[in-house]
Amino acid sequence: MSEFGLIRRHFTRAAPGALLGVGDDAALLQVSPGNVLAVSTDMLVSGTHFFPDADPFLLGCKTLAVNLSDMAAMGARPRWATLAISLPAQNDEWLDRFSAGFFALAQQHEVDLVGGDTTRGPLTLSVTILGEVASGQVLRRDAARAGDDIWVSGELGDAALALAHLQGKVNLSAEDYAVCAGRLHQPQPRVALGVALRGVAHAAIDVSDGLLADLGHILDASGMGAVLEIDALPVSALLRRLQQTRLALNGGDDYELCFTAPAERRDEVAWIAASMGLPLTRIGQVVVEQGCQLRDAGGACLTFEERGYDHFG
Amino acid sequence: MSEFGLIRRHFTRAAPGALLGVGDDAALLQVSPGNVLAVSTDMLVSGTHFFPDADPFLLGCKTLAVNLSDMAAMGARPRWATLAISLPAQNDEWLDRFSAGFFALAQQHEVDLVGGDTTRGPLTLSVTILGEVASGQVLRRDAARAGDDIWVSGELGDAALALAHLQGKVNLSAEDYAVCAGRLHQPQPRVALGVALRGVAHAAIDVSDGLLADLGHILDASGMGAVLEIDALPVSALLRRLQQTRLALNGGDDYELCFTAPAERRDEVAWIAASMGLPLTRIGQVVVEQGCQLRDAGGACLTFEERGYDHFG
Repeated sequence: MSEFGLIRRHFTRAAPGALLGVGDDAALLQVSPGNVLAVSTDMLVSGTHFFPDADPFLLGCKTLAVNLSDMAAMGARPRWATLAISLPAQNDEWLDRFSAGFFALAQQHEVDLVGGDTTRGPLTLSVTILGEVASGQVLRRDAARAGDDIWVSGELGDAALALAHLQGKVNLSAEDYAVCAGRLHQPQPRVALGVALRGVAHAAIDVSDGLLADLGHILDASGMGAVLEIDALPVSALLRRLQQTRLALNGGDDYELCFTAPAERRDEVAWIAASMGLPLTRIGQVVVEQGCQLRDAGGACLTFEERGYDHFG
Repeated sequence: MSEFGLIRRHFTRAAPGALLGVGDDAALLQVSPGNVLAVSTDMLVSGTHFFPDADPFLLGCKTLAVNLSDMAAMGARPRWATLAISLPAQNDEWLDRFSAGFFALAQQHEVDLVGGDTTRGPLTLSVTILGEVASGQVLRRDAARAGDDIWVSGELGDAALALAHLQGKVNLSAEDYAVCAGRLHQPQPRVALGVALRGVAHAAIDVSDGLLADLGHILDASGMGAVLEIDALPVSALLRRLQQTRLALNGGDDYELCFTAPAERRDEVAWIAASMGLPLTRIGQVVVEQGCQLRDAGGACLTFEERGYDHFG
């Protein structure tokens, strides 16, 4: 099968939200009136971001999910994606499952695959995601204000625990691994939460490199500091039992949203949590003093030097 | 240096055409009123698209150039780009030169780098380019009509000749290689031509995989055939002297535009050529009969079976 046949078989589906989809030199898209375009790119490399024998269906999901998560963190509605894929050799069975996973999640979020590239080389996946948001409602990193509550969605650390097991750094029972593996292989991009937080939250980021590192980006961009209540962190029962709660601070791959919101919006945030069936936990406060202090229930200050994941750190 | 330091040092410049550039979860862009967004992605892999020891400045230029060429082929004005780059190890000298080349061409075309990703892995470069075009003026592949003239810009085949030399398939003198090497390493994306052809041309494509293959995409999409005057092809003196003119048909990497336009627009096309100082050559005609016939000056029909480059062919 040719490159063009490959694209037709695996990556060409109807793109009802596009003026022109796959098959020309470029796709043509109409941004909705009153909206600006949000654009983000994430690249996944075999051996760096996933194991070469990763399940291709789940990998297809995750390749899109990590990009959807960036849209969520801006409060943007994802609309379109392009996919560039480098493959060592054509493998139709693998591509069938990979594309099925990609399109399954795309359909859930009404995202059209509108273009891309397919070439020969080491297995590498690069997605650019395009979304829309009204310009006054964007959740930017630099918008945290002193006194804001700091919130995080879901639970943190389970994805990092599953990864640590696969890397041989911890040794989980099959039952324990089953509990946390889904968080690593099937992250749930918090797109609906990002949209719900428009006009409620000030700043937001998705937790991909670990809470401390990603919250640090909000604080740096906003010129603020934070006090975190370490005992308030939403950590799974599994992580507590295994005494691996530090993974909730410096793990990664959570793809939860960390956001700040004024204290007078607490009721609205609680309502959003209840209406979505998604825990939203208040974990601290934005303060003027730079740096991130960690406090335990007794009010004692802890230090914490480990930072999040950094590809060239 | 951390991944974030790397991005700051090498890939963060002012983005005056963006609402928000590098540094958040996504860039924010405002599409001009009356315009639609044109989006295209191209991936370049070391060993497939370029030699591992390629000059990083020229590689930076080319990485953007091949994407600009896709905008040109739509008649779109390129505005923004994202760059995902996978690197075996951090090499600041290489990155300094690569980014200098990328930004040099970006500045020429007033394109802002607004986002991307940097990760560890085999050297792979993936650019998504975003441009604007009024929706009624798009140069689509499927818009060729019977009776249209077929035109091509510049000269064809020199880039493929230079590549054949580097691959050891032909053996050029240093002087001859110097004549054609620039066409391989410094392709000139025909952005201004694409804009000038709005409202004049019907269909267009950029010649990246070889004229026959790329014209074939126009013909397939339009449900048409073509008669090409083989002696009319714009071939360099070098290619003629070396009797390598077939490279003008099935070479690649030319990044010239092939377009169709009604016969009554010939004067306008000639005026565009003169005003831009860029040869535009009429090489044949769109016909209703499917397939691509090649005719020599005596009117005899030739057959030509070789097609363009295909990564999985």
